Amino acid sequence: MRAEIIAVGTELLTPSRLDTNSLFITRRFNESGIRVMRKFVVGDRGEEIRRTLGTALHDSEVVILTGGLGPTHDDITREVVAEALGLQLELDPTLVSGLKARFQRAGFKITENNFRQAMVPEGAEPIENPNGSAPGLFLREGKALLFLLPGPPRELEPMMDQVMELVGKHKQITQAFQRRLKVASQAESVVDSAIGPIYTSYPQIETTILSSPGIIELFLYWVGEADQGLAESQLEELQSRLVEKLGESLFTDQEESLEEVVGGILRKSGKSVATAESCTGGLMGKILTDVPGSSDYFRGGVVCYSNNLKVDLVGVDREVLERFGAVSESVARQMACGIRERTGADFGLSVTGIAGPEGGSPEKPVGLVFIGFSDDQETKVRKERFPGTREAIRMRACRHALDWLRRALLKSPNWLTS
Amino acid sequence: MRAEIIAVGTELLTPSRLDTNSLFITRRFNESGIRVMRKFVVGDRGEEIRRTLGTALHDSEVVILTGGLGPTHDDITREVVAEALGLQLELDPTLVSGLKARFQRAGFKITENNFRQAMVPEGAEPIENPNGSAPGLFLREGKALLFLLPGPPRELEPMMDQVMELVGKHKQITQAFQRRLKVASQAESVVDSAIGPIYTSYPQIETTILSSPGIIELFLYWVGEADQGLAESQLEELQSRLVEKLGESLFTDQEESLEEVVGGILRKSGKSVATAESCTGGLMGKILTDVPGSSDYFRGGVVCYSNNLKVDLVGVDREVLERFGAVSESVARQMACGIRERTGADFGLSVTGIAGPEGGSPEKPVGLVFIGFSDDQETKVRKERFPGTREAIRMRACRHALDWLRRALLKSPNWLTS
Repeated sequence: MRAEIIAVGTELLTPSRLDTNSLFITRRFNESGIRVMRKFVVGDRGEEIRRTLGTALHDSEVVILTGGLGPTHDDITREVVAEALGLQLELDPTLVSGLKARFQRAGFKITENNFRQAMVPEGAEPIENPNGSAPGLFLREGKALLFLLPGPPRELEPMMDQVMELVGKHKQITQAFQRRLKVASQAESVVDSAIGPIYTSYPQIETTILSSPGIIELFLYWVGEADQGLAESQLEELQSRLVEKLGESLFTDQEESLEEVVGGILRKSGKSVATAESCTGGLMGKILTDVPGSSDYFRGGVVCYSNNLKVDLVGVDREVLERFGAVSESVARQMACGIRERTGADFGLSVTGIAGPEGGSPEKPVGLVFIGFSDDQETKVRKERFPGTREAIRMRACRHALDWLRRALLKSPNWLTS
Repeated sequence: MRAEIIAVGTELLTPSRLDTNSLFITRRFNESGIRVMRKFVVGDRGEEIRRTLGTALHDSEVVILTGGLGPTHDDITREVVAEALGLQLELDPTLVSGLKARFQRAGFKITENNFRQAMVPEGAEPIENPNGSAPGLFLREGKALLFLLPGPPRELEPMMDQVMELVGKHKQITQAFQRRLKVASQAESVVDSAIGPIYTSYPQIETTILSSPGIIELFLYWVGEADQGLAESQLEELQSRLVEKLGESLFTDQEESLEEVVGGILRKSGKSVATAESCTGGLMGKILTDVPGSSDYFRGGVVCYSNNLKVDLVGVDREVLERFGAVSESVARQMACGIRERTGADFGLSVTGIAGPEGGSPEKPVGLVFIGFSDDQETKVRKERFPGTREAIRMRACRHALDWLRRALLKSPNWLTS
């Protein structure tokens, strides 16, 4: 089934704002086999909304329109849609009482403009908004189902359950047939040339490759005939072949991040990690602590951006620093080993490199990064040369370090079973 | 002048990808008084691209289509556009030589599919791509200017100079009349209620307020009659009144980040900073080092996520930790002072708090954050209660700390003039 999403809001046409609701909506749709075929962003202007709505309703079976349902003068979605579809707006007494009760609970006096939110186009069905004053609306227009939802994500997201229920009531929706695989520390071109010959032999499965610095995601999506048995067996077969080919660079087939996977193994094995970061400036610590509960296994670390801090807080030899420079195999080694010893963590990870855009030289170009790994057996260093911007180089360095830790943990299965 | 942007790519219709090129394009357009009225995202499917292109060309004077110009089989933008406009594709000998030279330089053998990138619709003008193999294309269709640009941001962004030049050659573009103001450490509702009565009295200026955790941006955009003198004097007047009202919470009227502003003042004053981070896990160091050249003033710091690291690496008293807990005024104070002393930096900043979503209590709820500031005169601590997600709480904490440093630096003007 074909869906389109229209995000309404002049602020979404500025250089600093993106519509992110469509990602959440797409996830929920995909789970039920509904595909988003097109997305629009339009301003709070009647003519734009009308034109875009017409196009979307003409082409798709489900249309979601987000934003512009609030009480202020620039919120015009409800009125424009009613007018475009030739429907009268009527005051809904149940919504009026709901609004009054809501304002009373909050201790506010209700102002006149709020009652606009209780106006419903004839024949439309309100959708309850547990986190805000503007209800959603559900309408049928020809073969299409049309939903109007409020723009704030914390209001919209819980309302998607009701949307999916209404879609299921009026259309035949199926379970989605899809898989996902996530790969770390590999270049997109390397992954694609390794697995391309495999996935292209499954024409009924659409394989999409998404890469971000240091991570590649593969989505396998069944686009063949609606036969559950066939879909599942084909997806299973393709997934097994890919898993085998990708080997240990595959870190999950679930919707979880690398740092969640690494954290999960550390927690399970009762081990801890500490970090010594130079060019990444704290990013590796930030990523590890993006995961709630990471204090169970992340001790912390040192951001030794200056040479003095490398010496004073991590224990790098000043002589080694002067001889080889801060971006060197020896310094990365002493950082990884030093932070492990000083924090008492089981593992030490270190990063030192040239993140750019300035500061490179022929011997030490921008993108050169040394990553150190230390456990109670040994300390090892890898020399990498990462492409991309300052931001991408720093992200790649952190993810490579975390992935190295993941692979090391998996090679010591005694921790996992103990 | 009215513009529309069409992003092409099936991956942009998945739950994990957004089109971000449109933000960069919008910024460049706005600088020349061109307004983006609508944005589309479509998959790599001929029918979708054709339909959407038709709608956009019908409604706007400038249309930018991004993505789908590469050599692989799913890159179909060039062919679909040529077909939709009824134009023959011709091999461009200059582009062919360019491609051959490019591959030779990189030491790769050129494969047959790459020559698709040298195909040009009749009458179209190639746009040079310094960072990739797929050139852009410029076409005129009726009153509309149509640009096809490659999807990767590092290829697209430098090509926008040529786009702006071509637009200027064929259309009357004006200097844009706009201003921007950025404010830190204030809630959006507080800022809006303070400045609302001012900006609403300028109906010819559209004022947009964008907030992200800890930062509020105001855009003032002239939408009145095309009179340069009037536009500039009105904008100047409104800006002065807002600047006066916002006081020291205003940190720039330029396109620069808070960390760039703080870094600039530190560099100018010859002062340095170090950080001790608990709940932010390295994020403050990451933000400071997002700025190239930050090693001039950022010494580094400690991510003391565990209590032991607070004691061992920053010098917090174990007794104080046990008595008041890690999230306390006293610990924030010792962290800020300790990191300044141990690193020899002029300023020490510290953050300790409950970022959530778990771990809160009635006495210490999620969002409670203590921020410490230390210089050679004194050490001070602020207790804050931030709203939002884990991510937002951590970002607000870092930006509040950096903004505190900014305000402190501005109060010591002797550093700036020395």
